[in-house]
Amino acid sequence: MATLGLIEYHNASTEVRAVYDDIMTTRKTDRVNNFWKAIAHDPATLRRTWESVKQIMGPGALDPLVKEMIYVAVSATNQCGYCIASHTVAAIKAGMTDSMFTELMAVVGMANETNRLASGYQVEIDEHFRT
Amino acid sequence: MATLGLIEYHNASTEVRAVYDDIMTTRKTDRVNNFWKAIAHDPATLRRTWESVKQIMGPGALDPLVKEMIYVAVSATNQCGYCIASHTVAAIKAGMTDSMFTELMAVVGMANETNRLASGYQVEIDEHFRT
Amino acid sequence: MATLGLIEYHNASTEVRAVYDDIMTTRKTDRVNNFWKAIAHDPATLRRTWESVKQIMGPGALDPLVKEMIYVAVSATNQCGYCIASHTVAAIKAGMTDSMFTELMAVVGMANETNRLASGYQVEIDEHFRT
Amino acid sequence: MATLGLIEYHNASTEVRAVYDDIMTTRKTDRVNNFWKAIAHDPATLRRTWESVKQIMGPGALDPLVKEMIYVAVSATNQCGYCIASHTVAAIKAGMTDSMFTELMAVVGMANETNRLASGYQVEIDEHFRT
Amino acid sequence: MATLGLIEYHNASTEVRAVYDDIMTTRKTDRVNNFWKAIAHDPATLRRTWESVKQIMGPGALDPLVKEMIYVAVSATNQCGYCIASHTVAAIKAGMTDSMFTELMAVVGMANETNRLASGYQVEIDEHFRT
Amino acid sequence: MATLGLIEYHNASTEVRAVYDDIMTTRKTDRVNNFWKAIAHDPATLRRTWESVKQIMGPGALDPLVKEMIYVAVSATNQCGYCIASHTVAAIKAGMTDSMFTELMAVVGMANETNRLASGYQVEIDEHFRT
Repeated sequence: MATLGLIEYHNASTEVRAVYDDIMTTRKTDRVNNFWKAIAHDPATLRRTWESVKQIMGPGALDPLVKEMIYVAVSATNQCGYCIASHTVAAIKAGMTDSMFTELMAVVGMANETNRLASGYQVEIDEHFRT
Repeated sequence: MATLGLIEYHNASTEVRAVYDDIMTTRKTDRVNNFWKAIAHDPATLRRTWESVKQIMGPGALDPLVKEMIYVAVSATNQCGYCIASHTVAAIKAGMTDSMFTELMAVVGMANETNRLASGYQVEIDEHFRT
Repeated sequence: MATLGLIEYHNASTEVRAVYDDIMTTRKTDRVNNFWKAIAHDPATLRRTWESVKQIMGPGALDPLVKEMIYVAVSATNQCGYCIASHTVAAIKAGMTDSMFTELMAVVGMANETNRLASGYQVEIDEHFRT
Repeated sequence: MATLGLIEYHNASTEVRAVYDDIMTTRKTDRVNNFWKAIAHDPATLRRTWESVKQIMGPGALDPLVKEMIYVAVSATNQCGYCIASHTVAAIKAGMTDSMFTELMAVVGMANETNRLASGYQVEIDEHFRT
Repeated sequence: MATLGLIEYHNASTEVRAVYDDIMTTRKTDRVNNFWKAIAHDPATLRRTWESVKQIMGPGALDPLVKEMIYVAVSATNQCGYCIASHTVAAIKAGMTDSMFTELMAVVGMANETNRLASGYQVEIDEHFRT
Repeated sequence: MATLGLIEYHNASTEVRAVYDDIMTTRKTDRVNNFWKAIAHDPATLRRTWESVKQIMGPGALDPLVKEMIYVAVSATNQCGYCIASHTVAAIKAGMTDSMFTELMAVVGMANETNRLASGYQVEIDEHFRT
């Protein structure tokens, strides 16, 4: 078997359940996404990843919605199907409207295009960007 | 010679100058970045790219600062040195503070990490993300 | 039709069969994976790729299991679903335990994260890394 | 200014110094790499990243040298110049010989090649890789 | 719902229908691909993307078939399943034979391999490539 | 020292010299690029890579110039500075004009953009692309 499968709550260890509980409480939901159930095979990674995500995506200098849209931007750039699907839903929950989504996609597409024009044309970094 | 070099204003055709002028007017600056001077070897691409960037990065459903930060997120994910340098400057001009930048980077780093955990663990997309 | 389909053993040319036979003998199996059956439409690529893989993945300075895990690390970074699935199975056959797999994923995830922090923060390479 | 620059020990806050101290103690060195000095502008990210790296790269199911080589494999795949330079040095310190390095590169190169053959030929995942 | 779904011709606005009509006329087909029906939720992006594609992929210094093969090369490198499928079909329509496809894949695979050897070995750019 | 450095002809083993000689003869030049001098630390990889490149880039179903342009397209997509520089020179030698180069870049940029629109919008592959 190539994949480890998912660890459901009723099969989870106390350590894993504690993280699941914190995910559900923090996110105000009674669901734990497959992502967490998959990496739960490694409780240390489950805890570390969840604690990091909670810290990073929580209140701070950037709006939670902005952070979710950045997550979608990175995931679309990397072609990660799972992450695009899950973080688009999260962004919608955080308030992303259809027109915000389509505008996000336009920026992501354009950035990916100009990234390659810049490298392909071997453009040197402007002096005033360095100092 | 491997690179085409940069087309400065005084060497530019009328067609290219018109785009340069619009860039400087739109951005309220007297400078044209190397990126535009490089792709100016192809006036059609220069015009099309500028018109697209102007349309996409202009007023819309998302804040201009948010769009610049998304540009930085994509560029950092793609390891495009030129684009990281230029769009970080642009984001700072649009109002990005140090703490917004460091938080942006934290999200970009985390998204790149979980993108690979999701693919490496071969996580199936949750049913409720599809419907 | 967009894909060329798979070339099964009974439909294969003598040249292709010779490679299939060598794959099965070398890997001590009676199965040829879809990957080889797909690229068999180009016998030169089939032979060259197989000879290269056999040479690179064979005995050397690195343990075969280590090499398979490196293969998984690259495939997860690139989001190649086929390669993640097939090389995870190969790594398990080569002795990868569950805890080795989850630790591998933790390293892959972290490397993908810090790769972007390094580029996003535009970190200069330390002098002592260059000399 | 586009980059935040580096925070040297003598300019660092107590919080940042504590992480620098732990890095130097753990790694048995009197140097802190530029990477840490750059992300130190965000003490939370500095601490979180260092704690994660320390946990992941420490003793476990995989040999420390193997982990450093996986780090190099990911960094080379992502074209991260800083990370390739720093983790190649780290891998050498951990015992990587020249022949181990060149073999590592051969595997990384081959994996990147077959990743694209698999996607380009649109190869379906074999049934026995799924179950 | 995470995805916006597809906008069919009979549900499309006049603005969107005009683009669909131009796509079908230009491509001499009575079908509009899902890609266009998806991004039609953002008529500005639909129009801009279509106008750009039409301009870039139209008659020029490069043969249309060559351009379609370059599209496939980029899409396979990026692991974009949709784009590989659609542009492989487009390349076949433009005249790509089986042997041209397999040779294209061989080049794409090799380029992806040597890209990583070059970065992993930290090869400095030859002086004569710069001047 | 993090990099192995370059192996010049006068320091090369007989085995390595044989490959260098073949490179210079095949390419009708008296120069060996840094790439080969770097991977020469691993004579098996040097030979295998050169033999593969010679086979793939030689006469076939595609024009040599087209193949060099595909190489540039992949390298620009991957942000590989060395490969962009060296293969752009190679393409120019093979006959690439300025307008062919700028058109190539336009296609590469556009493909990178639409790759992300397709993944971000989660576009399903059209039925007629599959059969």
